Amino acid sequence: MNFSSRLIEEAVSEFSGLPGVGRKTALRFVLHLLKKDKKEVQAFGEAFIKLRNELKYCTTCHNVSDQEICEICANPNRDHSTICVVEDIRDVMAIEGTSQFRGVYHVLGGIISPMDGIGPGDLNIESLVAKAGTGNVKEVIMALSTTMEGDTTNFYIYRRLKDQPISISTIARGISIGDELEYADEVTLGRSIINRTPYANSLSLK
Amino acid sequence: MNFSSRLIEEAVSEFSGLPGVGRKTALRFVLHLLKKDKKEVQAFGEAFIKLRNELKYCTTCHNVSDQEICEICANPNRDHSTICVVEDIRDVMAIEGTSQFRGVYHVLGGIISPMDGIGPGDLNIESLVAKAGTGNVKEVIMALSTTMEGDTTNFYIYRRLKDQPISISTIARGISIGDELEYADEVTLGRSIINRTPYANSLSLK
Repeated sequence: MNFSSRLIEEAVSEFSGLPGVGRKTALRFVLHLLKKDKKEVQAFGEAFIKLRNELKYCTTCHNVSDQEICEICANPNRDHSTICVVEDIRDVMAIEGTSQFRGVYHVLGGIISPMDGIGPGDLNIESLVAKAGTGNVKEVIMALSTTMEGDTTNFYIYRRLKDQPISISTIARGISIGDELEYADEVTLGRSIINRTPYANSLSLK
Repeated sequence: MNFSSRLIEEAVSEFSGLPGVGRKTALRFVLHLLKKDKKEVQAFGEAFIKLRNELKYCTTCHNVSDQEICEICANPNRDHSTICVVEDIRDVMAIEGTSQFRGVYHVLGGIISPMDGIGPGDLNIESLVAKAGTGNVKEVIMALSTTMEGDTTNFYIYRRLKDQPISISTIARGISIGDELEYADEVTLGRSIINRTPYANSLSLK
C-alpha cells in the first residue's frame, strides 16, 4: 500500500505492531484519529507514554499498581496466608470479578514456554518461593491456564514448593456451568469424574 | 472491570475509543505496550500526535499529503481533465493499486448520510463544483460505494454538475471477476445485463 504520506505510513506501522492488528485495520484506526481534534489525539498519544513511564508494579505480588504496594496486598481484611498464583494481571481481574477469593495474588508475568524462549528465570518465581518460606503462608492455589505450558509451570512451582509445610492446590477442572455433558471432551469429563465433589458442597454455594 | 491502576484505566479507555476495539482487546494492547521498552512506547505515542499536528491535506483534491499539493495532483504526466470522485483516502489507495487510472482524484471526505447527520455541506462538494466550472475538466467519474448513501451522493453531485459541458460516469457495476453467476444477487445480475459491454472491449484489456 502506498500511503502518499510518510506520517500516515509511520502511524500505520505503529498500530500494526499491536497484537491482531493488520495494516488495513491500522489504517482504519489512523483515519479515525484524523477525524478527532488535536487535543483528543494529544491525550491519546500521551496516555500510553505516561502509562509506560509512571506505572509501578507491586513489590509484593507484582500486580500493576499506582503505589509501591497494590490495593489488594495493602488490604488488612484479606487473607495473606492464601496466595493465588496467576499468569498476568488479566487473571487477577477475572478472579476479582468472581468475588469468591479473599486471599492475595502472585503474578508470574507469564508461563514457562520453551517454544517462546521463556524459562523459569524470566518469571517471578523466586520471589514466590521466598514468600512461601517465611512461614506466613498456609496455601498456594495454582490458577494457570489448562494448557501444556500451564501444566509445566504448575509442575515446576510444585517441585520448588513441595518441601515447605504448605498445601498446594490447583483450581478445579471440570464441566463448565451451563455445558451439555455430551459435548464435553473426554479428558475434561474423565477428570470431572475422578475429582467429583460431595453433593452437599454444591448446596452450600450461594 | 477494575484495573487496580488509574493509568491502565486511562490507556484502556483511549484504545477502546478506536473503531471495533472493546475493553478486552484494549487491555490486550495495553499489556503488549507494557512489555516494550520506554523508547518504543514513546515513539508509539508520538507518532499519532505528530500525525495529527503535521499532516496536511492537498488543497486541490483533499487527499492527505506531506505537501500543499499531493504527489498525484503535482504530477504533470497525469490527466488533469479526468477527475475520479471518491469517499476517502482508502479509496484513492485502492484505485491507485489497480494501476488502471491515470487521471486525478477528488476526495469527498465522506458520503451523504442523513442517518449519521452528514449532509452535502459537510463534504468537499463545493470545491468539486468550482473545479468542474473552470472548463479544464472533461469527465467526472463517480467511484462511490454501491450503497443507498453512495447512490444519494452520486445523484446529488450529478444534479450539481449536469449543466456543465462535462461527461459524468459511474464505475461499472456487475458480476465480480471469479464469481459464479448462480450466486449473484438479482439486482447486480440485472444491471450487468442492461449494461453489457461489447465482447471486443474485454479482449483489449491486458
